[in-house]
Amino acid sequence: MAYIHKDESALYYECGYSCDNAIFLKSGSDAWFVTDGRYETEAKSSIKNANVVITHDIVSQTLSIIKKHKIKKCYFDPKEWSVAAFQRLSVSKCRFIPNIDMSHKKRLIKSNKEIKLLDKAAKVGAKSFDKCAKFFANDGIGLSEKRLAFEAERILRDSGKRGLSFEPIVAIGSNAALPHAVPTDRVLKSGNLLLMDAGIKYKRYCSDRTRTAVVDKDFIFDYSQSFGRKKIQKAYDTVLKAHDKAIEKARSGMRAKKIDLIAREVIEKAGFGKYFVHSTGHGVGLDIHEMPYISSRNSQRIDDNMVFTIEPGIYIAGKFGIRIEDTVVMENGRARVLGL
Amino acid sequence: MAYIHKDESALYYECGYSCDNAIFLKSGSDAWFVTDGRYETEAKSSIKNANVVITHDIVSQTLSIIKKHKIKKCYFDPKEWSVAAFQRLSVSKCRFIPNIDMSHKKRLIKSNKEIKLLDKAAKVGAKSFDKCAKFFANDGIGLSEKRLAFEAERILRDSGKRGLSFEPIVAIGSNAALPHAVPTDRVLKSGNLLLMDAGIKYKRYCSDRTRTAVVDKDFIFDYSQSFGRKKIQKAYDTVLKAHDKAIEKARSGMRAKKIDLIAREVIEKAGFGKYFVHSTGHGVGLDIHEMPYISSRNSQRIDDNMVFTIEPGIYIAGKFGIRIEDTVVMENGRARVLGL
Repeated sequence: MAYIHKDESALYYECGYSCDNAIFLKSGSDAWFVTDGRYETEAKSSIKNANVVITHDIVSQTLSIIKKHKIKKCYFDPKEWSVAAFQRLSVSKCRFIPNIDMSHKKRLIKSNKEIKLLDKAAKVGAKSFDKCAKFFANDGIGLSEKRLAFEAERILRDSGKRGLSFEPIVAIGSNAALPHAVPTDRVLKSGNLLLMDAGIKYKRYCSDRTRTAVVDKDFIFDYSQSFGRKKIQKAYDTVLKAHDKAIEKARSGMRAKKIDLIAREVIEKAGFGKYFVHSTGHGVGLDIHEMPYISSRNSQRIDDNMVFTIEPGIYIAGKFGIRIEDTVVMENGRARVLGL
Repeated sequence: MAYIHKDESALYYECGYSCDNAIFLKSGSDAWFVTDGRYETEAKSSIKNANVVITHDIVSQTLSIIKKHKIKKCYFDPKEWSVAAFQRLSVSKCRFIPNIDMSHKKRLIKSNKEIKLLDKAAKVGAKSFDKCAKFFANDGIGLSEKRLAFEAERILRDSGKRGLSFEPIVAIGSNAALPHAVPTDRVLKSGNLLLMDAGIKYKRYCSDRTRTAVVDKDFIFDYSQSFGRKKIQKAYDTVLKAHDKAIEKARSGMRAKKIDLIAREVIEKAGFGKYFVHSTGHGVGLDIHEMPYISSRNSQRIDDNMVFTIEPGIYIAGKFGIRIEDTVVMENGRARVLGL
């Protein structure tokens, strides 16, 4: 049956090109990429599997194509369309049938080519973490979180060569207790706990990684970290154990919630259960958050060629926060950490 | 009547705070800001005029409030809601009535406080243009558009002190002929035409500015520019004249399309009519594009305290592009350029 997309990652997945004002329509072996004049040159040179149609009004042009080709039913994703845009579509005689997460579902099993790109993204991302550690160790003491996040972004972008998966999170001490910390004016001191969560895009594919470390003049973002305070060390060791165990024990054929449980049980047994306030991971691909979601409620079966994060954490409000995250691919029934 | 918002600028306008997962609901003198635990601390300390409600599911929590307070009718903006999110809202007995651009309409006439912030944003933005010119003149020759855009962004952000209104556009020579040029690997040479379109955010309010210049070792982003080639010079002088005349002749009480016509006629009379492919301007405020739209089809009346851009351009495909843009405020019946 015919289907229609508007979301940029969905467009890119369908035809290898996207822009912020376009509709992709597929019906049988016919496909159209409807956009405006600003994108004509690039769209025509990039897209091989769809007719590029240039117009002032992408919705009404798409409706004309639907009418001309007598398309009677068409899937759409209700998350991709605003009520206002969909109202304009739905004047058509064609029946639009909701298919939520239609593109994400299609992208759940990655091709070998996609896995190579995700692996490369993870490698480049990991290298940037090393560069950030070097900068933070040499020049970071005395700078604010805002400034550190700015410098991390500069390093991650590598003079504009790359885009980011999301704005990097750089949080010091108790600020790390907010899982989605926004950088503040708090200043980095030697001996501080520092959490960094960041990712880059390589040929549109995302990397995602978190490390928590103690900053001194030769620190690196290693798994092995020594915190001065016992409670922090215990929490850190617990998170690391949860992370390692989930990666080690994950198997194709398992339910997503089983993988979440493996990590969660380690943290619960250590007495930190109520401080692990989010799920264990999420899929990564063209979008930074996609399927499969590694949560306690998700019964989805995990299979080979799925790519997702393992990112347990412990967050004690006003005190400290710890998270360790890697992105893994399921291969031959087991999880392999990307970017190694 | 009650109304509901989800868009970040609309939220900020209502209560001085916003985040990416929140709903603002107002009914008579009661107001609620519904968000999740990640934003509790900041929301509670920032918001004075609404009850901050923390929940795991902002839509169902909002529906409970609507039910409890027996709200029967509620305005919403169909552009702010995806079909999927609105489907969840619309299970309520409350009648949701579409009011398109509801927040933008409210924000059309700026307060004096907002104008001060927009003026400051324009000042800071203009200073960044001067700094970029200095960098481009001293170190920019030999760098690619991608790298120049990256360095412009670095200067505009000023070590992370500020956010941007949008990704800066830096285009060389014929690439400037694309009104929304995406930076390429093309390298800047001395004597090249360079177009830069960029804006920063100051306390959430946007600046927007474009200059076109000839780059040499002491160029500045001045209105006065000398191009080697006659045709480019004629086009440049025409755009500048259109820009100046529109600002000089704009009056409160005029229709938006009249201001567009003032600029367009200058360009048409010079024989470049078909190369001015967009409208003359757009409103600027919390969003980079808001009302009033200064286009040939918009009959909206322009009034004091409206803020918008004047940005005529001439784009000759494969050859060159020119645009000159300032943001103006209507005051005492006339347009004043912000940031001077």
